[in-house]
Amino acid sequence: MPTAILKIMVFTLTLAGSIQCGKVLVFPHDGSHWVNMNILIQELHNRGHNVTVIRAADSWYVKEQSPYYHSITIDFSVGQDEAFFNSFISRQLQIQRERSSFWTRFSLDMELKTKFSEIHRKICEMVIHIIEDPKLIASIREARYDVMLTDPANGGGVVLARYLHLPLVFNVRWTVHGEAHFAIAPSPLSYVPFPLSMLTDKMTFFQRVYNMLFFYLRLFLYKRIVGPHYSALCNRYFGPDVDYFKLFQAADIWLMRVDFVFEFPRPTMPNVVYMGCFQCKPPKALPDDLEDFAESSGEHGIVVVSLGTLVGQLPDDIADEMAAGLAKLPQKVIWRYLGKKPSTLGNNTILRDWLPQNDLLGHPKTKVFVSHSGTNGILEAIYHSIPIVGLPLVFDQHDNILRMKYKGVAQVLDLATINQNTFLEAIQEVINEPSYSINMKRLSGILRDTLVHPLDNAVFWIEFVMRHKGAAHLRTESYKMPWYAYYSVDVIAFLLLVASGTIFLSFAVIRYVCCRACRKKRVKQD
Amino acid sequence: MPTAILKIMVFTLTLAGSIQCGKVLVFPHDGSHWVNMNILIQELHNRGHNVTVIRAADSWYVKEQSPYYHSITIDFSVGQDEAFFNSFISRQLQIQRERSSFWTRFSLDMELKTKFSEIHRKICEMVIHIIEDPKLIASIREARYDVMLTDPANGGGVVLARYLHLPLVFNVRWTVHGEAHFAIAPSPLSYVPFPLSMLTDKMTFFQRVYNMLFFYLRLFLYKRIVGPHYSALCNRYFGPDVDYFKLFQAADIWLMRVDFVFEFPRPTMPNVVYMGCFQCKPPKALPDDLEDFAESSGEHGIVVVSLGTLVGQLPDDIADEMAAGLAKLPQKVIWRYLGKKPSTLGNNTILRDWLPQNDLLGHPKTKVFVSHSGTNGILEAIYHSIPIVGLPLVFDQHDNILRMKYKGVAQVLDLATINQNTFLEAIQEVINEPSYSINMKRLSGILRDTLVHPLDNAVFWIEFVMRHKGAAHLRTESYKMPWYAYYSVDVIAFLLLVASGTIFLSFAVIRYVCCRACRKKRVKQD
Repeated sequence: MPTAILKIMVFTLTLAGSIQCGKVLVFPHDGSHWVNMNILIQELHNRGHNVTVIRAADSWYVKEQSPYYHSITIDFSVGQDEAFFNSFISRQLQIQRERSSFWTRFSLDMELKTKFSEIHRKICEMVIHIIEDPKLIASIREARYDVMLTDPANGGGVVLARYLHLPLVFNVRWTVHGEAHFAIAPSPLSYVPFPLSMLTDKMTFFQRVYNMLFFYLRLFLYKRIVGPHYSALCNRYFGPDVDYFKLFQAADIWLMRVDFVFEFPRPTMPNVVYMGCFQCKPPKALPDDLEDFAESSGEHGIVVVSLGTLVGQLPDDIADEMAAGLAKLPQKVIWRYLGKKPSTLGNNTILRDWLPQNDLLGHPKTKVFVSHSGTNGILEAIYHSIPIVGLPLVFDQHDNILRMKYKGVAQVLDLATINQNTFLEAIQEVINEPSYSINMKRLSGILRDTLVHPLDNAVFWIEFVMRHKGAAHLRTESYKMPWYAYYSVDVIAFLLLVASGTIFLSFAVIRYVCCRACRKKRVKQD
Repeated sequence: MPTAILKIMVFTLTLAGSIQCGKVLVFPHDGSHWVNMNILIQELHNRGHNVTVIRAADSWYVKEQSPYYHSITIDFSVGQDEAFFNSFISRQLQIQRERSSFWTRFSLDMELKTKFSEIHRKICEMVIHIIEDPKLIASIREARYDVMLTDPANGGGVVLARYLHLPLVFNVRWTVHGEAHFAIAPSPLSYVPFPLSMLTDKMTFFQRVYNMLFFYLRLFLYKRIVGPHYSALCNRYFGPDVDYFKLFQAADIWLMRVDFVFEFPRPTMPNVVYMGCFQCKPPKALPDDLEDFAESSGEHGIVVVSLGTLVGQLPDDIADEMAAGLAKLPQKVIWRYLGKKPSTLGNNTILRDWLPQNDLLGHPKTKVFVSHSGTNGILEAIYHSIPIVGLPLVFDQHDNILRMKYKGVAQVLDLATINQNTFLEAIQEVINEPSYSINMKRLSGILRDTLVHPLDNAVFWIEFVMRHKGAAHLRTESYKMPWYAYYSVDVIAFLLLVASGTIFLSFAVIRYVCCRACRKKRVKQD
């Protein structure tokens, strides 16, 4: 092995010489997406690159001041506010509890979509604001950035990159059209479940029917809701021939926040780089009070509970049921909870506003992670080999935890109908039934077994794009083809036409020859 | 950068601990394919793994004794002999020179295919020989190999791996069904040119028609020629339900001897690992005589000529024309040639039986590489940034050099019609027109710019498969689906049926209601 290490070192040293201190322009997506982008930005900064982030004046997550980046604050309100999403989550929970009618559910769903449409409209306006501010756009041009890094959950960065003629790198799982693979790689709907469909890669006939209908319905909705805004924006600057969907497909590198330990295997493309667990890292020591608490759990260990940043508090009765269930555990419990202290809270449970989640999951005492099932949390749980009890509520959470249940490393409960007994049973099952922990160890072993850490790989590819001004050799240009040519519909039609023409002609000739022969015979007979 | 290096080191050291000294069973493909396999074997040996190679007693390339592997020699003659291929090449050249009729070409092509069929039949017999020798197969079982490494240009290793229940790693570009991607990844024929078709990834309508016809014709031929042998073999040991094509598709990792600097970008799969230039390495010092000769070329530099291992000699007149062309160059020429010394050989040219090709291509004096356009030679030329004059003759050589011409780094000549002037002009054009060298520098920069050397990556994945007993999480099992399900034909038919049924029913209802209304009206009127 020493030879191998030496080779890698020599390779890296050789490259180190040619890595420029690049200038990276970042157009992020606000909200929890920013957490991922910020990790990449910090690493770029640590390697000597100069990072500039474009943010709206009322940005929800992106701070104006940071030791890791400069910011360009646009005097503009996008209105992607916390209040709306908090209220959405409460209402979603209420609807689930009350088993409301289809129409109530549908109308909340439409309200969310209208909000998304509104956010995308505002982002498009913000891009217009940037491009049509002569001083601002001139200063951006003069800065001579090497690459645009963006999260294509909104299309602002994509349009801006094209306008500025910058190579484009995505930090991505979702685009404005849905899951990112579906925008770039062939995705046979016969075994690739459309995310959010709650299906796996092994489907029955009617599941495949559902998968296809679901895919086209979502595509139609995405196109209807966000399409017009970006189409208008593209039309404004690039004319009617530039399709906004094709602009997405032209990105140089797609840094995909996915690992196949988590996602079902499916076709991919040469310019897709998987950086699944790029945020994963060994745990740091816990603060003294948490460490003492964890240690006091003895052989029983601890349970970590966190329902994500959006679910800060819960209806009292749900919180009480959860607390009562947790109180019956022999384990100690650390619960991130911002609401009123539940009346049934046990002596074994402490509440905190915030948790050092990665350090807790990496702590040797931790036995199980009770989670809302966001992608980051799940990947961290796999990395640290901690089985999960999932309480999914919105967005991709149901789908995420389904993948884990399918792999035998998680139990899933419905937060709306949870009671202390079902909650307690689920946690005890995951702790006491060895298969959860065995399966999770296997997944963790696979996730950790990489030659290069995913974060190093991701930064390498951003630097690659800067060094070579793109990665055109990895990108097919098939997306420029019209659909009938891409799917060879014209070729198949042509071949069918030729084949049927040939058959028809052969029959005609045979018939003609036979008829003539018959006629001659008849003439002879006459 | 030092942080990054440290991280990679820590990562590699962490892994080093868990890398077992594995036992690798190799079923190679004889001939030039062995050269590639041997590089992997040497690296596996250097890392402490125990490699065993299965070879036929009359093996053409695979030696019985080696410091890098043990061998199991099967007392069996496969008959993949040098004499046949040498004669085939001479006759192919003759046919091209004489512009022979279609039927002469076709009959030679069929002769080659019959030879291939014969080789595959023999390989199947050899596998039977192994499996049905109780002592031999018991000793192989007892050795408890961790992985089967094979070149699926023949299917012997695939069948044996299944019989022995071993995880399977491919060192591959060609399978018994044609180019490897077509066996595993979606391959839209609208922009993925079928190799050997002489097409690029940008095709006109009629080129797309040709591509589709060519693909299905080749597939039909492959299936007809080799299919029956492997089908019979599978049937013998695994019953009629195991399709030999599906056995191929079940391989854990496909180490693909391809780089997208060379190949057109196209869809791929998570378990495909690109190790394009895995044999590429910095040059070693030349032997003294060659070094002196190269240095004596002064500012003009040298030209390296090699037509591969199969074209040892040429018809006298072709060799004379080539030598006369080379004699007019101001450069010095080093030519690998086994035939009679050409009468027109210039003072600037030396002939050798064998060349240290990598060291010569990496020499600072080298200006151009005159090559038969095998994949290895082309990748080495790109690695060392040397433009090419291609003289392709058989197999994939025309297609390989076409890719290089398309990228502006090569000139192509027809060996059958070459004369001293066209040859001289082509070499001079490539040396004097700066675009060839500029384009090649760009390609070379991209090929070399990897975080991990392709050989290290390849060995990592073989070790990964040994550590985790496969790589099932990266492999879709879609190949197990019937074709109509894979292509969603049943789902589309069902949806069309439902849609047309609904429309028909709606019409029927409307008609019924209208009729009733009319009748009522009439009754009222009456």
